[in-house]
Amino acid sequence: MSLVQVVALGGVGEIGKNCTVVEQDDDIVVIDCGLSFPNEEMLGIDIVVPDFTYLVENKERIRGVFITHAHEDHVGGLPYLLNQINVPVYASELTMALMSNKLEEKIPVKQLDLRTFKPGDVIPAGKLTVETIRITHSIPETCCMAVSTKHGHIFFTADFKFDFTPVDHKLTNITRIGEIGQEGVLCLLSDSTNVDRPGWGPSESLVADGLKKVFATAPGRVLLTTFASNIHRMQQFCEVAGEMGRKVAVVGRRMEQNLDICNRLGYIKIPKGVKINLDEMPQYADNQIAVLTTGSQGEPMSALVQMSKGTYGRLQIRQGDTLIYSARPIPGNEGAIWRTVNRLFRQGCNVVYQSADHIHVSGHAYQEELKMMVNLTRPYYIAPVHGEPRHQHLYNGIAKGMGYPDHRIFTMEAGIPLVFTETEAHVGAPVACGRVLVDSSGTPGVPDEVLRDRHNVANDGLVVITIAVDPEHGELVGDPILQAKGLHGPEGLVDQAFSFLTDALANLSPEDLRDTSIIKHEAQDAVRRFISKRSSLRPLVLTTIVEV
Amino acid sequence: MSLVQVVALGGVGEIGKNCTVVEQDDDIVVIDCGLSFPNEEMLGIDIVVPDFTYLVENKERIRGVFITHAHEDHVGGLPYLLNQINVPVYASELTMALMSNKLEEKIPVKQLDLRTFKPGDVIPAGKLTVETIRITHSIPETCCMAVSTKHGHIFFTADFKFDFTPVDHKLTNITRIGEIGQEGVLCLLSDSTNVDRPGWGPSESLVADGLKKVFATAPGRVLLTTFASNIHRMQQFCEVAGEMGRKVAVVGRRMEQNLDICNRLGYIKIPKGVKINLDEMPQYADNQIAVLTTGSQGEPMSALVQMSKGTYGRLQIRQGDTLIYSARPIPGNEGAIWRTVNRLFRQGCNVVYQSADHIHVSGHAYQEELKMMVNLTRPYYIAPVHGEPRHQHLYNGIAKGMGYPDHRIFTMEAGIPLVFTETEAHVGAPVACGRVLVDSSGTPGVPDEVLRDRHNVANDGLVVITIAVDPEHGELVGDPILQAKGLHGPEGLVDQAFSFLTDALANLSPEDLRDTSIIKHEAQDAVRRFISKRSSLRPLVLTTIVEV
Repeated sequence: MSLVQVVALGGVGEIGKNCTVVEQDDDIVVIDCGLSFPNEEMLGIDIVVPDFTYLVENKERIRGVFITHAHEDHVGGLPYLLNQINVPVYASELTMALMSNKLEEKIPVKQLDLRTFKPGDVIPAGKLTVETIRITHSIPETCCMAVSTKHGHIFFTADFKFDFTPVDHKLTNITRIGEIGQEGVLCLLSDSTNVDRPGWGPSESLVADGLKKVFATAPGRVLLTTFASNIHRMQQFCEVAGEMGRKVAVVGRRMEQNLDICNRLGYIKIPKGVKINLDEMPQYADNQIAVLTTGSQGEPMSALVQMSKGTYGRLQIRQGDTLIYSARPIPGNEGAIWRTVNRLFRQGCNVVYQSADHIHVSGHAYQEELKMMVNLTRPYYIAPVHGEPRHQHLYNGIAKGMGYPDHRIFTMEAGIPLVFTETEAHVGAPVACGRVLVDSSGTPGVPDEVLRDRHNVANDGLVVITIAVDPEHGELVGDPILQAKGLHGPEGLVDQAFSFLTDALANLSPEDLRDTSIIKHEAQDAVRRFISKRSSLRPLVLTTIVEV
Repeated sequence: MSLVQVVALGGVGEIGKNCTVVEQDDDIVVIDCGLSFPNEEMLGIDIVVPDFTYLVENKERIRGVFITHAHEDHVGGLPYLLNQINVPVYASELTMALMSNKLEEKIPVKQLDLRTFKPGDVIPAGKLTVETIRITHSIPETCCMAVSTKHGHIFFTADFKFDFTPVDHKLTNITRIGEIGQEGVLCLLSDSTNVDRPGWGPSESLVADGLKKVFATAPGRVLLTTFASNIHRMQQFCEVAGEMGRKVAVVGRRMEQNLDICNRLGYIKIPKGVKINLDEMPQYADNQIAVLTTGSQGEPMSALVQMSKGTYGRLQIRQGDTLIYSARPIPGNEGAIWRTVNRLFRQGCNVVYQSADHIHVSGHAYQEELKMMVNLTRPYYIAPVHGEPRHQHLYNGIAKGMGYPDHRIFTMEAGIPLVFTETEAHVGAPVACGRVLVDSSGTPGVPDEVLRDRHNVANDGLVVITIAVDPEHGELVGDPILQAKGLHGPEGLVDQAFSFLTDALANLSPEDLRDTSIIKHEAQDAVRRFISKRSSLRPLVLTTIVEV
């Protein structure tokens, strides 16, 4: 019996760290290799990447990692995979350029096997092939991917929308997607992020009109913040600024880098004479100036956040400035974003963050677009990806509404393979899978215990007990020391805990005092019990026994 | 010269802890006394209340605290004020009943001077008077308040919307608001929370239609979660359930309490025979059951969150259940809410959280309603409250659009008085003001230092160094001890830090070793420097010197 297997190492039941493995006999292809951002419970964590154990164990069979587009949730895990195994990585020219830039910061790119494709290319991968098909999304050169197996195509939509007026005029190859549907799609893995939005999403090019309206009434400089990867948004801003007789300066390292790359490779067309350097700004009146800036997520070190605090040396916000917030808050960042916006208002900057006109549009398909994708690909099986369980379940409802019976719809879970035989599909045995937390030193693998301790201290503080003993004679040496940090609670709590500790130690017999583990246990226990009873706090208690 | 002064101790430049002081000569009235919820940077903090120093210092002059409505951001600070000073508190019957319930948990209500008013009452407060006027909001018996001073009325809108079809049919006394406008409003302090929403907000009674549509297609039980204070939402749910032939059970302590109070006092009308106890549910088929539940903010101990985890003994979620999410996520709770929703979907529950029909409406005025309030009150000065700076600034734009010149619009800041003379208004000298953090033991006054330490450990972990010395002879006793908690970083980091520490100590001279502060400083410094260089982490380093 000949099996085809699809297993997601991330990106199902969550939004982020997309990474899916397609297997057939001796061949494996991997679609995307992303990261995700920590939730509010992951204290001190910078990013989260998939557990790559399964790929490492099967590295001999991997024919390539195929990248659909250059967003972090599709490429950000690569350095952590390529640190463990060196396998070919395929991406379009632009995607490769944008991601190499970041890869280089972690790993020497020259050692890697990076291969560029053109949208439309069909790439052999052992006995599998991967066909790349242009599709529209919020970053240029996104490709959906059809992996042809002996049982039919496994079709990855990638992140997509059907935008008939994309800024670069490069249209989705709808016809080819339809042809692949006719050739036979075994399983569709579809973006489901926006499944809770009815209708059809607005085109990126509508944003130009929204921007124009803001420009038309802005008395002074106009700033715009968006994701540094939103190339078309930046292009539209430059075009509108140019039309309105303004020059555009760019602040923020990543934005400048991305614009340089796109400019060099021809993926952005900024009207001649519009772009200026930041230090040329004083040559122009305020109403001749426009500024592109990073910081749309309230990142503490970003240009925008520093400007909002008045600590950005190269540009000061002033009365009459207008900032266009042309992005979507990533969940968890709302607090930092609104604090930034509030500070900007306080400095006299008008922030346009909500508007009847489009100043931001989503890059993901709405309900009718999702249905159109099903219509084109006519898959036998359907599995929504790129969504939390709520998105997957709502998508399944749409599939049912299009006539799909339950047994042809799969709610994938990370690490649980979908196995296709010649006649049916079923769920296979789990493979190694999980999340790997990366701390701010960049070191992957922060264990749960570390998070638990951080939580503990973050919520209730910390008590450190130090006790010197002479174990030979079974006696305490001097008084114990009790220090509290990050602890509040009712008045006198720490002093009372100290009394309680000395009382508890006084009750120990000379035999007990010969056994440091008994001392440690009794001391810790006494302090924990007292504090919990008196204040219902449960601080982390650390005890050190010094034997002298 | 006779001054009238208005100073907010909270609730301006933020949403939460509303508390505003009106002063004239020997008399002070306080409008509302709320709490706010911590932002994500306030680790281990449960609630935030205003610093009441100014009220404590002026307690002799306080004629009363007047409560506009029973939401936590208007009453939740009361226990912390009344613990310090005993002053009369005025509230409507329902507001009093709802808040006494919570007050009682912290402070014996019998000791307090609680006074009930009826909407429409005019209450003398020294030479000031406070007139209470019925207005519509998302909780019954909300009152706006006109404080009559010698220079005219200070008009507090309270939280409001203009709802012409409120569920209890108790309409806003628009005429009286207009009359007060004619009598002369010196300053309007207006709700500004929804100033970024154009148009006129939908009426609460529209929610009934939204609910009906969900009920009509729900195959099994229908659950609804909302704020435990949203009495009218609960009433509508019961009415719709009754019409649809369903019985309603209620889970969640606070919701049950509030329903009992409202039922007893006649503020809710549940159709006869509709309400059942949870243990009567097995007598009915699933499609005859409806359930009201707490947990709309993803609170860990709430009934809904426990149900989503399958740990709520009294009710298990099952395939075919439908949950209506009839609330708004309070910023910061999104993560917990979506995790709950995802778990419910996984258990086979369909969660309706976004709908073309109204399953939730806001209790706050949209732009046109805010303008209507200005139109009615025709104030001389305007100051938006109940908003972050962004809301205040947008509101100011609306006031300008209605013809108000800049000098008649004030962007209030907490603790900065607005001073009114007979001929003008200006900003006065700051009064004591700030935020008081309450930790999970309920103890107010968590200092910034405690938060800093918690942050430090939460982000980068903790290192505890213990060194035993014989200061008399200037020598170390045994090896130092280095323990790390909540710390990750590159492999071998802790072992290397230990070597670095022993090396640093070995370099100390016998004289140095006689001085514990030198030892402490050198040890701490060495470990900090090493870890920061090797990993760029900056853990909290705690050093204990044991003298033996």
